[in-house]
Amino acid sequence: MTAIYRQVALIGLGLIAGSMAHAMREAGLAGRITGHARSAATRDTAREIGLCEVFDTAAEAVRGADLVVLAVPVGAMGPVMEEIAPHLAPGATITDVGSVKQSVIDAVMPHLPEGAHFIPGHPLAGTEHSGPRAGFATLFRNRWWLLTPLPDTDPQALARLESLITAMGAKTDRMGAPHHDLVLAVTSHAPHLIAYTMVGVADHLRRVSGEEVIQYSAAGFRDFTRIAASDPTMWRDVFLHNKEATLDILGRFTEELFVLQRAIRMGDGQQLHDYFTRTRAIRRGIIEAGQDTGAPDFGRTPGANPAE
Amino acid sequence: MTAIYRQVALIGLGLIAGSMAHAMREAGLAGRITGHARSAATRDTAREIGLCEVFDTAAEAVRGADLVVLAVPVGAMGPVMEEIAPHLAPGATITDVGSVKQSVIDAVMPHLPEGAHFIPGHPLAGTEHSGPRAGFATLFRNRWWLLTPLPDTDPQALARLESLITAMGAKTDRMGAPHHDLVLAVTSHAPHLIAYTMVGVADHLRRVSGEEVIQYSAAGFRDFTRIAASDPTMWRDVFLHNKEATLDILGRFTEELFVLQRAIRMGDGQQLHDYFTRTRAIRRGIIEAGQDTGAPDFGRTPGANPAE
Repeated sequence: MTAIYRQVALIGLGLIAGSMAHAMREAGLAGRITGHARSAATRDTAREIGLCEVFDTAAEAVRGADLVVLAVPVGAMGPVMEEIAPHLAPGATITDVGSVKQSVIDAVMPHLPEGAHFIPGHPLAGTEHSGPRAGFATLFRNRWWLLTPLPDTDPQALARLESLITAMGAKTDRMGAPHHDLVLAVTSHAPHLIAYTMVGVADHLRRVSGEEVIQYSAAGFRDFTRIAASDPTMWRDVFLHNKEATLDILGRFTEELFVLQRAIRMGDGQQLHDYFTRTRAIRRGIIEAGQDTGAPDFGRTPGANPAE
Repeated sequence: MTAIYRQVALIGLGLIAGSMAHAMREAGLAGRITGHARSAATRDTAREIGLCEVFDTAAEAVRGADLVVLAVPVGAMGPVMEEIAPHLAPGATITDVGSVKQSVIDAVMPHLPEGAHFIPGHPLAGTEHSGPRAGFATLFRNRWWLLTPLPDTDPQALARLESLITAMGAKTDRMGAPHHDLVLAVTSHAPHLIAYTMVGVADHLRRVSGEEVIQYSAAGFRDFTRIAASDPTMWRDVFLHNKEATLDILGRFTEELFVLQRAIRMGDGQQLHDYFTRTRAIRRGIIEAGQDTGAPDFGRTPGANPAE
């Protein structure tokens, strides 16, 4: 494939940027891939595994790049943009991969140089692992990569970025930033906080030993711990920067939970059964939409799962 | 392998009983496998796939059996035991596979005939699928199967049942019924109710379309929907029969959630970061205990996952 960008600069070298480097190299989508991470240890690891041309400063990494990808925690986007702004090539496109969009736009736009294009983005892909070694080329395959372009976004710059994203195997969609932040509060941010909370409750409980919780985690709790093992810095920033939508969803969640708790306390089996029957239908929709498989998931113990 | 029981009768022919039938037949653990399900459609399916010798009544299925497995929803255990009691072979062992133990003991014991042994059990294994077609021989491999024997349980009958369970690939542990019910409230029952609730919230939200929730479920929410797709009747009974422990854990959960919500509202990033760092350690413990794999889980789209 012909390279879509002459030089792509990755600022932040974690799971997402690392996977982009693998995917772009495999498909020949970038003439050069340069990169920078704030931590010297991360830069050393990235050099060791040959992830990209690693520079000690973000300024050096972005020099000459026609695409710059901000792949740092949401709270670091503004300062990073401020740092690289004087070093950007004329007409460069800047995108980000943050899980929250409005606050990133608010933080980045004041620093955007004349003639540069900022196109906010969010790949709905990831694992519970983090760091440069966690990346792999197929991470984005068949996943959504949402873009929240601004009203005056250059259509050509947008189309070019979309062609890079689809060439890495992802599907793109466009929406407004506030709507993105609400949708993600429902599908990702609130579920993560809930999973973190439930794992914390288990950790505090004194009458049940930690060993018991761990040994007998097979049904339900195990999935929560996987979610709750995600990168703490990334998630701290997500909650602080999508505060309103997350608190709104958590408020609704608590209301709903109280209704079900009351049904349990009152012994209202019919209400519980009706509720659980409705939620089953949503699951079927997700399988039909190709966002998960219908194969049973019952432990993921290596070798024990005929469906894997 | 020599058969451990002359005849095993399965009452209820869902995921667990079906998987037991496959596992016992593969390893030659039972001379005969008989069974009964209340629904004629389930009996027809079980006959069609040759799951076991299917009888139209539970009384016929248990005739001559030296092991009877009650594999029905927790709320049906008492009535089923009452129905089969007059037809049990002298000295038969009865076990169950319910997710709650104290209420099953309370419901079953009054009907237990002189000379029969009741040994309550709970395999920590399952998938989000249900019904006789959902079973497979390796479901129990490397999973825990908890037993909550009563103070006067016959040691020989207990050892024999344990040898059947381990021959199906599971690991056994013994504990008191009330402790079991508390441990499972933490590791399974509360997480399930929480997952059902979060999926219900998404379903109600009018500003976000159902299609968006389904399409963009990749991060976090997807795992909740898998949990929330479990059998509604089984789970209704679990909550109604483990009411106190579940409400206790949900109360602690709500408290803890309010603390984190407050940290978000107040912008206390340090508290969030500390909390998320602690929950990560629990995840590592679960992987080390062999209850999950460390392989990244990022969508389970067929063919897209190099780790599967």
